[in-house]
Amino acid sequence: MTGGALPAAELWAVAEAAADAAAAVTLRHFRGRALLAESKAETFDPVTVADREAEAAIRAALRDRRPADGVVGEEQHPEDGVSGLTWVIDPIDGTRGYISGTPTWGTLIALRDADGPVLGLIDQPYIGERFMGGLGRAAWRGPQGEGALAVRPARELSEAVLFTTFPEIGTPEDRAAFDRVAETVRLVRYGMDCYAYALLALGQIDLVIEAGLHAYDIAAPIAVIEAAGGLVTDWEGRPVHDGGRALAAASPELHAAALARLAGGETACPEG
Amino acid sequence: MTGGALPAAELWAVAEAAADAAAAVTLRHFRGRALLAESKAETFDPVTVADREAEAAIRAALRDRRPADGVVGEEQHPEDGVSGLTWVIDPIDGTRGYISGTPTWGTLIALRDADGPVLGLIDQPYIGERFMGGLGRAAWRGPQGEGALAVRPARELSEAVLFTTFPEIGTPEDRAAFDRVAETVRLVRYGMDCYAYALLALGQIDLVIEAGLHAYDIAAPIAVIEAAGGLVTDWEGRPVHDGGRALAAASPELHAAALARLAGGETACPEG
Repeated sequence: MTGGALPAAELWAVAEAAADAAAAVTLRHFRGRALLAESKAETFDPVTVADREAEAAIRAALRDRRPADGVVGEEQHPEDGVSGLTWVIDPIDGTRGYISGTPTWGTLIALRDADGPVLGLIDQPYIGERFMGGLGRAAWRGPQGEGALAVRPARELSEAVLFTTFPEIGTPEDRAAFDRVAETVRLVRYGMDCYAYALLALGQIDLVIEAGLHAYDIAAPIAVIEAAGGLVTDWEGRPVHDGGRALAAASPELHAAALARLAGGETACPEG
Repeated sequence: MTGGALPAAELWAVAEAAADAAAAVTLRHFRGRALLAESKAETFDPVTVADREAEAAIRAALRDRRPADGVVGEEQHPEDGVSGLTWVIDPIDGTRGYISGTPTWGTLIALRDADGPVLGLIDQPYIGERFMGGLGRAAWRGPQGEGALAVRPARELSEAVLFTTFPEIGTPEDRAAFDRVAETVRLVRYGMDCYAYALLALGQIDLVIEAGLHAYDIAAPIAVIEAAGGLVTDWEGRPVHDGGRALAAASPELHAAALARLAGGETACPEG
């Protein structure tokens, strides 16, 4: 991670202001009976009024304070910048959860330079929780207090808790690879969207595996988890900040073990 | 639902006091690094210190205020009463979610008479949300306000949102039955534990299907959902307050359609 010469306090103030602007919109529509859900593609991919309005609110907040930075989001066309920095935003990560009333969707705001994310923020405004990592910060605030983000100590894959959002993750090959990890760990849980990355950064769980991600789905989680001491790569161990298939792990040892299982399990010990 | 002659205000005060007593324990241990998880059975079924202490706190609150009532809980032996009323409690429903740090576990407190649950409370103390149904009440309180519980209007199965906790629900036959419903609905989501029942009572989702339940898993959700205008039965349409396989639905039409699919899909229309 780079970013040592960046104005950290200013950039964090901007990121938090953008998250606050999004929260005003997302909370106004959350659980509302009149919420519209349209279909962006043939599969069920809801785009709500809240999604579009929240992205507009974030872009307005960024444009006012950081007009030289670029912006890449889920809903609108990318805006090029001249600063070498780009904000990567997802106004509502977990739209399906959002339209179902679950409190585990989030607003994702990241800032990246040429090498990748340098700042990430995961916001869950209904609960009132915010997870922040990068530029010297690794912190959370929530309804019961605040504290530092830190991944949990390394443990064996057989003791690990693994999260993914959908059991039918990715392609059939992706699913088979995921299952090789899932059948090895202690516990698999589903349905948390971006909240799972926050739990990893909080030291509550060990692994998150997802497929089919866009850059705006993963940029903020990368910065949050790296700041907490964890690792996020693609399923081949390479950078994943442009999207694709992500493996987030609390320790290098666990990351290596999960990576091997994803690749075909060649390091698994024969039983008996 | 019965209970017209019961002292509703007193019983609700007792239920809320019991939930408050549990919350003091569950929040003290939630996301704590020192939380112990033991194994009750060969499969991973964590019983935490928090679970046992929270049940003790609930029982103490009930014993002080309602000594003539019985108590049935997850952790301790049943206590018989002489009033004809029994409290049915689960200090932490969704223990796996609890030990993973997710905010969608809950404390379940129900009161039943000879016919079934008459009062139910689902509490999520980390978020600060409480869902209450029965004895004339159908209400929620949360971090963003409070309001009435009411299920959403009837809709077709093909438009419904369905929740269950584990994709590997119940036996292989249970799973096949569940899949017949799942392949018909618009959206299936996982991992919410008792929070899914609250979402149904809030009018956010349409169906919850679970298997392998105990009485203490389902008694409170039954009262909450019935007070909100929904239905909860077993997979054959019979009372489920003693546990087993549960189908919760927002409307009688949707309940009938899901029941038919669970039974073998004989009412499904041929395509083309």
